[in-house]
Amino acid sequence: MENLLWQHIQHVKKSVPLIHNITNYVVMNNTANALLAAGASPIMSHAQSEVEDMVNICQALVVNIGTLDEYWSLSMIKAAKKANELGKPWILDPVGAGATPYRNDILTELLQLKPKIIRGNASEIMALAKASDLKTKGVDSTAASSEAIEAANALNTEYDSVVCISGETDIIIDGNKIMMLNNGDSLMAKVTGLGCSASAITAAFAAVVEDKFEATLAAMALLGVCGELAAKTSAGPGTLQLNILDKLYNITEEEFMSTLKISE
Amino acid sequence: MENLLWQHIQHVKKSVPLIHNITNYVVMNNTANALLAAGASPIMSHAQSEVEDMVNICQALVVNIGTLDEYWSLSMIKAAKKANELGKPWILDPVGAGATPYRNDILTELLQLKPKIIRGNASEIMALAKASDLKTKGVDSTAASSEAIEAANALNTEYDSVVCISGETDIIIDGNKIMMLNNGDSLMAKVTGLGCSASAITAAFAAVVEDKFEATLAAMALLGVCGELAAKTSAGPGTLQLNILDKLYNITEEEFMSTLKISE
Amino acid sequence: MENLLWQHIQHVKKSVPLIHNITNYVVMNNTANALLAAGASPIMSHAQSEVEDMVNICQALVVNIGTLDEYWSLSMIKAAKKANELGKPWILDPVGAGATPYRNDILTELLQLKPKIIRGNASEIMALAKASDLKTKGVDSTAASSEAIEAANALNTEYDSVVCISGETDIIIDGNKIMMLNNGDSLMAKVTGLGCSASAITAAFAAVVEDKFEATLAAMALLGVCGELAAKTSAGPGTLQLNILDKLYNITEEEFMSTLKISE
Repeated sequence: MENLLWQHIQHVKKSVPLIHNITNYVVMNNTANALLAAGASPIMSHAQSEVEDMVNICQALVVNIGTLDEYWSLSMIKAAKKANELGKPWILDPVGAGATPYRNDILTELLQLKPKIIRGNASEIMALAKASDLKTKGVDSTAASSEAIEAANALNTEYDSVVCISGETDIIIDGNKIMMLNNGDSLMAKVTGLGCSASAITAAFAAVVEDKFEATLAAMALLGVCGELAAKTSAGPGTLQLNILDKLYNITEEEFMSTLKISE
Repeated sequence: MENLLWQHIQHVKKSVPLIHNITNYVVMNNTANALLAAGASPIMSHAQSEVEDMVNICQALVVNIGTLDEYWSLSMIKAAKKANELGKPWILDPVGAGATPYRNDILTELLQLKPKIIRGNASEIMALAKASDLKTKGVDSTAASSEAIEAANALNTEYDSVVCISGETDIIIDGNKIMMLNNGDSLMAKVTGLGCSASAITAAFAAVVEDKFEATLAAMALLGVCGELAAKTSAGPGTLQLNILDKLYNITEEEFMSTLKISE
Repeated sequence: MENLLWQHIQHVKKSVPLIHNITNYVVMNNTANALLAAGASPIMSHAQSEVEDMVNICQALVVNIGTLDEYWSLSMIKAAKKANELGKPWILDPVGAGATPYRNDILTELLQLKPKIIRGNASEIMALAKASDLKTKGVDSTAASSEAIEAANALNTEYDSVVCISGETDIIIDGNKIMMLNNGDSLMAKVTGLGCSASAITAAFAAVVEDKFEATLAAMALLGVCGELAAKTSAGPGTLQLNILDKLYNITEEEFMSTLKISE
């Protein structure tokens, strides 16, 4: 599996997929730079007058609701529909799911359009399942992560989406398959938008890797490994944000292989 | 006082207050990172469909009019009203006050909602008082700073807001109280949005410190000291922007105490 | 010519021109910082209620359509008209020209307002000429760059705009005049928005330099030289973004003169 992930990483760099981002204001610069550093080509576009045309020329779409509003949410729905129509993968990043009724309403609409991949933290994944009125055993859960895994399974069953619960351990779920990644560094939680970068990079991999479970795994592995390596040379979260970009750009096979911690 | 300020800095880190930002596009990423580095948790949200719900789950609100427009200004007013209704502190950053009639109109409306704290540079504070038709002695002023202090006093009297005039010397005013901070570095003026970071960090302190004069003082002291220390190791404004975030995150009591320059 | 360009660089730093930016969300922070580092003073403002007033207090305007939508495009047109009315230079950055019909429509409208300077990459300049139905010999072209030069000449003839085609070699065209700059580094293509910074810096030079051909040349030379120097000390695109800002701020005459590669 490790070799396969590295091949996918090289595949993205060789293919330079064009990725359409409808994402939040906070992370746009950093997301674009993360995509460039990983070898993809970013487009940020939200105008209702052109989102469908942009989906048409891109290989994958990211919908990130971080700073959504009434106009942007319509653009997101329009673009996701178009992606489905054209058979292009689209990724949902449900930032702040559960924080407000409005966010939940829009997420419920977006879920009906069956994203190929959903990536969020445990609390967002649980809120997403709840907003969709999906039944999870819930009561039997003895730990936050097992509740999140149940929610992820429910979302996967209902919408046929690969689900990634990101956190200290990243958990990627699709059908019977489940894999864990144990890379990263606690300092990453002090940099805004690394989760958003993860979703965008996942879209880049989904654009060129047929198996979306593998695509998600490779993307999360890449960011986790780069974050872990970059943290070692960073004095704090400010420099970490930039060092991760450098590492996404210049990571070697040896660095990747010797740092990756993956398990079933 | 120095010890009290350091206690407030620790208080923020321990409490991790959730701060709602309706701020400008230019600084969103950096503001979110500054809040994270100082120990708070940022939310950026402006949709009229959810701003009131966001105010409800946060402990303080920042309204920064840097890139305001007709939609965003309504969101700001809506959020500030909700903050008042719930008794939560909100901070006004009057970016570009006086630059256009439109900016002044919106600021006049916002002032009616009595922000707990106002932070701006001398020219913005003076423009704010003028836009509110507040009488200042003006003609007797022999220096820009004394004019700004008069304007700050007038705003404080009229709206009961703590006022911070930031600049080479930061001046914090509330009723009879006035304090000066002489930290920082001239290179900070070459980094966009550090004033906006100051306002956001002030909100984080206002969220957990009862006395808003002390909260403002602690926030401004923290940023000034961190900026001054970070400038020493920065080759220019690019690296300074990141080094300040690192320093906000890892500043020690000894560094803070030995660098702080505060006076009445 | 080299000495003249350096004089223009110093002129900007001494004059601190106020530059009005209607630009895209992705690059706003970095554009503002690039302007500050080069010695200018940035304003970002897009509200239809104030763009004309902002044009009035600024010395030059940048219109960058990167993340345009229906509202923002009206603001751009309004501001460009006002700039013309007041005789202030405005610069067009046609990001993504040719990508969608909507982008082309808005660009066609903007071109009617005759920007003083147009800066884009070869593909954007060619798309711009095509969207304007300008006749270019086209078929005789034996290289991409000669096609772009033809397009630039056609745009220059039709709209009287100085045209800069940026890329590995930057080509600046006005009437019979054509100059080439061979600075920069391939790593710059991995940082988002350096083209947008180039346009903004060009506006800063256009604000204080009467001859717009020279202004464009000086701005592009400055960014190319700073990028080339900064790349030498950067581990990747993350740190490069910041090191360019540092270099824009602290570049010396000797560094500039010994690095500049200019030819007719």
